[in-house]
This record gives sequence, structure tokens and C-alpha cells, in this order.
Amino acid sequence: MNDKKRVYIFDTTLRDGEQSPGASMNTEEKIKIAAQLQRLGVDIIEAGFAAASPGDFDAIRRICEVVDKSTVCSLARAIDRDIIQAGESLAEAKHKRIHTFIATSPIHMEHKLKMSPDEVIRRAVAAVKLAKSFTDDVEFSCEDAGRSEMPFLKEILDAVIEAGATTLNIPDTVGYRLPQEMGEMIRELHAHVGERAIISVHCHNDLGLAVANSLFSVLNGARQVECTINGLGERAGNAALEEVVMAMKTRSDVFKGYDTGINTKEIYPSSRLVAAITGIEPQPNKAIVGKNAFAHESGIHQDGVLKCQETYEIMRAEDIGLETNRLVLGKHSGRHAFKERLEELGFDLSPEDIEKAFERFKVLADKKKEIFDDDIRMLIANEITNIPQAYELVGLQIADCSSGVPSAAVTIRHDGEEITDAGTGDGTIDAIFKTIDRISGHQGLLKDYRVEAVSQGKDALAKVVVNVKFDNNANAVIGHGLSIDTMLASAKAYIGALNSYLSMLPSNCQIDDCEGV
Amino acid sequence: MNDKKRVYIFDTTLRDGEQSPGASMNTEEKIKIAAQLQRLGVDIIEAGFAAASPGDFDAIRRICEVVDKSTVCSLARAIDRDIIQAGESLAEAKHKRIHTFIATSPIHMEHKLKMSPDEVIRRAVAAVKLAKSFTDDVEFSCEDAGRSEMPFLKEILDAVIEAGATTLNIPDTVGYRLPQEMGEMIRELHAHVGERAIISVHCHNDLGLAVANSLFSVLNGARQVECTINGLGERAGNAALEEVVMAMKTRSDVFKGYDTGINTKEIYPSSRLVAAITGIEPQPNKAIVGKNAFAHESGIHQDGVLKCQETYEIMRAEDIGLETNRLVLGKHSGRHAFKERLEELGFDLSPEDIEKAFERFKVLADKKKEIFDDDIRMLIANEITNIPQAYELVGLQIADCSSGVPSAAVTIRHDGEEITDAGTGDGTIDAIFKTIDRISGHQGLLKDYRVEAVSQGKDALAKVVVNVKFDNNANAVIGHGLSIDTMLASAKAYIGALNSYLSMLPSNCQIDDCEGV
Repeated sequence: MNDKKRVYIFDTTLRDGEQSPGASMNTEEKIKIAAQLQRLGVDIIEAGFAAASPGDFDAIRRICEVVDKSTVCSLARAIDRDIIQAGESLAEAKHKRIHTFIATSPIHMEHKLKMSPDEVIRRAVAAVKLAKSFTDDVEFSCEDAGRSEMPFLKEILDAVIEAGATTLNIPDTVGYRLPQEMGEMIRELHAHVGERAIISVHCHNDLGLAVANSLFSVLNGARQVECTINGLGERAGNAALEEVVMAMKTRSDVFKGYDTGINTKEIYPSSRLVAAITGIEPQPNKAIVGKNAFAHESGIHQDGVLKCQETYEIMRAEDIGLETNRLVLGKHSGRHAFKERLEELGFDLSPEDIEKAFERFKVLADKKKEIFDDDIRMLIANEITNIPQAYELVGLQIADCSSGVPSAAVTIRHDGEEITDAGTGDGTIDAIFKTIDRISGHQGLLKDYRVEAVSQGKDALAKVVVNVKFDNNANAVIGHGLSIDTMLASAKAYIGALNSYLSMLPSNCQIDDCEGV
Repeated sequence: MNDKKRVYIFDTTLRDGEQSPGASMNTEEKIKIAAQLQRLGVDIIEAGFAAASPGDFDAIRRICEVVDKSTVCSLARAIDRDIIQAGESLAEAKHKRIHTFIATSPIHMEHKLKMSPDEVIRRAVAAVKLAKSFTDDVEFSCEDAGRSEMPFLKEILDAVIEAGATTLNIPDTVGYRLPQEMGEMIRELHAHVGERAIISVHCHNDLGLAVANSLFSVLNGARQVECTINGLGERAGNAALEEVVMAMKTRSDVFKGYDTGINTKEIYPSSRLVAAITGIEPQPNKAIVGKNAFAHESGIHQDGVLKCQETYEIMRAEDIGLETNRLVLGKHSGRHAFKERLEELGFDLSPEDIEKAFERFKVLADKKKEIFDDDIRMLIANEITNIPQAYELVGLQIADCSSGVPSAAVTIRHDGEEITDAGTGDGTIDAIFKTIDRISGHQGLLKDYRVEAVSQGKDALAKVVVNVKFDNNANAVIGHGLSIDTMLASAKAYIGALNSYLSMLPSNCQIDDCEGV
């Protein structure tokens, strides 16, 4: 049967990916990514860990409202409270899955869980049974399977299948396995499980082997691969979705008949969106989606490419939806051309959002001669956001002198009122951020600050990403700013982080609006 | 014999790595990296492609003067002129190797070389023989071996062994192979070649499999691995040295008895140096050297780590020379403490360079409360350079206002004279760069602009990297600037790129100093 070779793609960008240090996303950002993952053709979207926080719970609930083709999944430890919260967060999903897990390696059972193997099995079975009361689609993971004992793995898998688990995930939690070992383990488990459930793998990249481990697993019987866009995730991340999918496609001679449901032309747009939102940019030499992945520098290779494209290219840039960064629009382009280009780039915006984007486009086109696709993507990803703009930048004025004191004057709108203040700093950026803190009354700790040029030339758009901690007990939040002027972009990014932080406070209300929070 | 399991590490950061778009380095930068590669314990340093340009030739020659433990290697096509230039560039090397190559796949022979297989063999044999007249240590590569026919590979390898080749390199030039295929090919070739020569592999990462392919090759008889720091290289790059080495070390149970000569504690310093010089930063989720590789975000994992380090860590950060980014020095630290810390960080500087670095350190310490190891690394990597400073920033003054016109006034020292001019731009950075162009008379095309915070906090050092093309016929050059103030750092970076460009002009002379260039 051909169907036996269908490989399901389980994307965990919103769960394991969000656990990358500094990659916290707000709910609106998660919804935007989930919608793109559905467009990409991902089978299962792991949308979060419902019990982790009210914010996570809410994000999963909201994602269920916009995703109707892909299955939406919530992670849950093998404890009642987690599973109930997962089930409730998924209530409105068209297709839903609960993914519950417990550690099965001796070192984890002894040191972390402090439970006997028998207790672990009982806990797993109870968890799966409870999950089944919310949905038929239940996945069970053996955490640290890579270091678990085979007879115990088989025993616990038999027990959870019996309890109703439909997908069994074998993660290499610490990224320790070599491909041949991973392949052998999956072959043995697949032979044992047979058609009773789907075997899944979840490989971490600590030794740079996550993709190879995933591919060997597929060749040995795994029918689900857990992965993330751009390979995000804890530490060195997870298997990169784009690498797993493109390796299977490019080497379809070996992966004969195996098929994923991925529309590869949405790979590049997905990668750009996740990079823009998380602020984590793939390195230029990242396979498939790095900005050099399809570039050729040396004269020898350029010559080869010109003579016969196939000499140095095993994939075509078009296959991943990467067109040459061609000039598309200029200052004389009208609303219609702009809207058409947005559609070609895969954006599905409301008329109001198109109008907002078009206004910003005209402002940009006035300052920048050539507008590239990447500029438009960035304009949309950074500027169209639905989180409440508690603070808004109205004006900025700075002065700096190499032997003097840099200063900034900032005007911000808050609660319908314009507030202006000034401050000094160790540099202009420092002066701007300190002045914003002074106006808002929120003291931010800057964890990261980065500027990148979106396209080429001195008049390129500057994309500023900041990572700020406004509260010792909260995660750092990301803010984005986009402008021809790096100073303006920096101010916007910092204010964006502040707004994102405020939008994630409990019940989305601001501290002075609700008592007793 | 244990020695049969010695795996040689051949680093090609300075050759294939430099072919990464945007990674061009000047001679002084290449020398700095070569010295660090020797400290890392690399067996062979591929220092460049002597015939590619007078600059490449000169860089190899100069590297031979500072490297005495590692073998220095030059690449050469299988043509007389290339091999003679390679030989001459290596004249002063203590240990030297010539690496010659020709394509052996039907598609390359037909489309690129337009030669018959017999002609290819004759050319290869002639090249190896000529190389032997310069050194006993000759490496031969079958370009695009991955798509070559096995009988032809055996035939050409027999012929070049006969001609004197001591290392036979099997590259997967287009990154197409899967690990099991690479392993099988190496096993068959190793069985054929036996002890007549060392088999080497050179894997590209287009499908994300370069490290897995290298490891499978080692397990099947390869005794040399070609790789680069941070996995730099054409397109998606080469196998990352740090991943290959740490996978072999971490999984020494499988790679039993296999040994590289790498001092793994120099991995992190090497990665930082290459990132600083090329401006290509590994992504945070890059295995081994990414800034999240040893970080733990989620509560569950943090708890696990606290309970028992081994539960989530398969390597220790210390193994790669990454200490916690601990606070080391402040404004009251003296010359002696600074010098000691430099030595601990592995810097080997002349007394004058230490003095220069100490002065900059004091300026920095005055502005920034806490000085971290990464700050010091950056201070040294960016500020100590021996290229002629044709232009030097003396003063900078900027004014910007969100509804006005950004302007910059810049003072630059050139030929002992101070020149001041002003200009406007679409943003402050644009205004600064345009004013520098106006003063120098060189029009730069900005290809890339990036700012990163070196450590944390609003008073973090800003590291600016620019990539500028000053001349249609030359490669883009990189410039670095470091300052608390992003504006100052940007100006320094742009002027640095200009100086780097001027230092690479033929005979290092400036256009107005020599006629007829």
C-alpha cells in the first residue's frame, strides 16, 4: 500500500522551538506562524504546552480557531492536571491531539522522576486513558528514549497502545544518538509495534546529526517526524523541517514512494516568517534556507553553473519558494499591483491590513528606490500586528557627538495623551531606550540588540530586533522595528517589546486597570 | 596498530570557507586565523588557492612564515601554472602540501571540462608529478566524486597513486549523498586503495548531512576529514570541524580508538575568531558553538540539569573552551590583571599590541561597568590589526529627528591631514556612510550591515559588521567597528572596510601613489 509510506510532518516550532532561549512569542505571533504552518501543509502543529502558563493555554485556544486543516496538538506531562488543561485548550479544534510524555531512561526515572519503572508505566497508561476522554488522537512520548532500555521501551509501548495511544514518539532528547543506532532502534520497535500505532521520532541536534537521525528513522519504519522551522528548539535545536523534507524530495530515488504532505514552495516564506518573529536568523550557510544556500561565489563554480545548471545545483531555489530577490515595485506602483504582489507572496490579509500595509509601503517607496520581495515580507511580518499598542512612538530626536554626551528626546502616545521627555546615555541607542523607560515607567533589561539590513544598498531597510526583560519573573520579550533610519527602527523595536510584554500580562489587562493581579 | 585510527583534520576555512559569499578576508585576518588553527591542533591548513589572485598567493606565503607545526596547503587546479604557483607560495613552509583536483563525474567532464575520461587521467597524473617536484606531500581530489562512476574512480586513483599522490580526497561537491551511500563508497575505495594512500572526505552540507557523511566515512576507512570552523563554505557550507570532532569525542564508545589531534578547548575561541573576522555569526541553535548550544530554557530541563547534570548534558561547555561568560575585569583592573586574562584566553600578543589593547580596555571600562570575556575577545579581534590605516576616524557628530533630515559631520585623518565634511542621508547611518564616501572619494556599495550586542545590558558593546563593495571588479570587503555607541561603531566599521579594501589593492599601494595600476 502506498499509504504505508506517508510520512507525517509534526511541527513543534511553537512548542520546542519556542523553548529556544530568547524565542518567546506573544499570542498574535503564534497565530501568524500557525496559519503559515497550515499553508505549508504540516500534518500536526504542536501549538504549545497548555499547562505551562495561562498565556500558553490561551494561545492554543486561539490557534484552534484559525487552523482547520492541520491537527492542533498540546503537550502535557503524564499528570491529570496537564492533560485536562491540554484537553480544554483544544476544545474548539477541528482536529485535535494530546501529546503526553514521561521519561523512560534509568537515569531520568531515578534522578528526575524518582519513580520505579512500574510506577512509570502505570502513570503513562493513566495519562493516555485520560487523554482519550478528550480525543481519539493521542500521542505518547518516551522522554530520553535514546538512553532507555529496549525491553522496557517495548513494555511501556505495549501498555500505552493497549490504553489507546495512536502515535508513539521516540525522542533522542539529548541529541546523543548516531544515525545507524537511531535506525536500528526504530527498526526493532517498528517490528515490535507493527501496524498497531504510528512510530514517530524527535531528534535533537547537539552533535549536528538530527536530520540524519530522522532520515534513518524513516528508512527504518518511522512514519512521523517531529521537527521545527529553521531547526529551532532547546540548545542546538531540533531536526530542521526544511532539511528533512528537501532531503527526502531531492533523494526521492532512495526515499522511493515516501511522501510528505508539505508544499515545499512555502518553505522559504515559512522560514522568513519564523526568523522575523523570533528574531533568530538562520546562519548564511544554513542548509536550504540560509541566504547563501543557493548562492555561488567562486569563479569556478559560477562558470560551472552557467555552463550547466545541474553541475552544481541539486535543488532549484524555486522549489522552496525562493525567487531571485527581484525588483518588484517602486514609488509609482499602485494599490492594485501591491495587493497582487502580496497575494503572490502568499499573504492573506484583511482589507484593513492591506490598506495599512499599503500606506507603509508608500512611505517606504518614497525613501527607498527599489523595493524587493524581502522588504515587503518584512513590512508585513513586522508591522501588521494585532496586539494592543499601549505605547506608540510619535517623535524622536537625537544628537550625538564623539566627544560629547549622546541625548535623545522621545514623544510617545499613551492612553490618548502625548508625553515627551529626554535623556542621555552611553550611546544614542542607550539614550533612546533610557528615555522610553523614563516615559513608560517600565525598566527594561536589554538582553539582546541586533540590526540587519533587509536588502542591499545604503538605503536598505534596517530591521532591528531587541530582546528585553521587563520583569524578573517573566520571559524576555522580542520587539521588532523597521525603518530606513536605524534610530527610528530601534525606538520602534523597544516600544514593540514593551507592548508585547504588556499584552502577555495576565488577562491582557494593564496593571493599573485591574485590581488584585 | 593504533596509528591506523588516527584521523587527520584538514581545515579549509581559509579556502572553501573564504568562498562563502561575503567572507573575503584580508591577509592579516588570514594570518590571525591560521595561527589559531595551529593552536587548535589542525593537522593541515588549506591556506588558499595560490593561482586565484596575487592576494591569495601572498596570504599563503605569509601564513607559511607563522605556521610551523601544522602542514600548510595550497589548492591548485590540475594545470601547470596553478601547481607552480602553489609550489612557490609554499616555498618557506616547514611542512607543505599541494592539493590538486580535477572533476571525475560524467556531467562535469562533459559539460565543464569538455575532456574525455582518458584525458582527465593524463591531466591528473601530470599534475601530481609536477606537484611532487615541490613536495612529497601531494593530495589529489576527484571533484564531484559523489556522482562519478566507481570503476573510473578506481582507475584514476590507481594512476595518481602511481604518480605519487599520498592523500586521495573524495568530495561530495554538491552535497547530494546520504550517509549510508557515502560510507559504502568509502568502504569500497578504501578496500581498493588499502595502505597505498590516505583516503580523505570533503562533504558539503546542502541537505544538512555533511557531518553525518563525514562520520560514516571515518567508520568506513577515511583517515582525513576536510572541514571548516562554523561549517563555513560555498552555499550551505562544509562539514563543521567542531561537530565532527565533538561527535567523535562524545561517542568515543563507537569511535573507539579513533583519535584526532584537536585540542577541543580551542574550539570555542576558534569559532569566535572566525565569526568576528568573517562577520558570519553561527545561528544560536548551531550545534556545539551556537550561543544556545549549552543553554537550557524550559523549567523542566532546568530542573533536570540541577538534579543531575548528566540528565540533559552529553558534553560539558568547558570541553570546548567555553567558560560561563563570567565577569572578569572592571575599571579598576590593572595592566597586569588584563595581561593575565589575555593569556588565559589564549591570546599571544606583542607588548605593543597588549599596550594598545589595554588602552582601549580602559576607555571601555570607563563607560561599561562589567567587562566580560566576550567583550575582551571582541576588543582584540576587532581592534588589533596590522593593515595600514589609510583613513582614521577622528570625530563624529550626528543629528536626527523623526520629521527632519538626518545629518552627520565626520572628521577623518588621512595622510597626516584632518578633513572634516558633512552630509545628509535617509537615516543617520546613511548620512555617516555618505559623508565618509564624500571625504575619501571612494564610493562604496553597502552589501550588508549588521549590529550585534557583544554582551548584555543597555551599555553592551555594539559590534557593527559592514560588507562593502568599493569597486565593481573586486570582492566585497568586511569592516568591523566596536563601540558602546552604535553610531561610532558604524563609522569605524565603514572606514575599516575602506582600509581593508585599500590594503588588498595590487602591491598594497594606493591609487594616487603609483602610476599605471
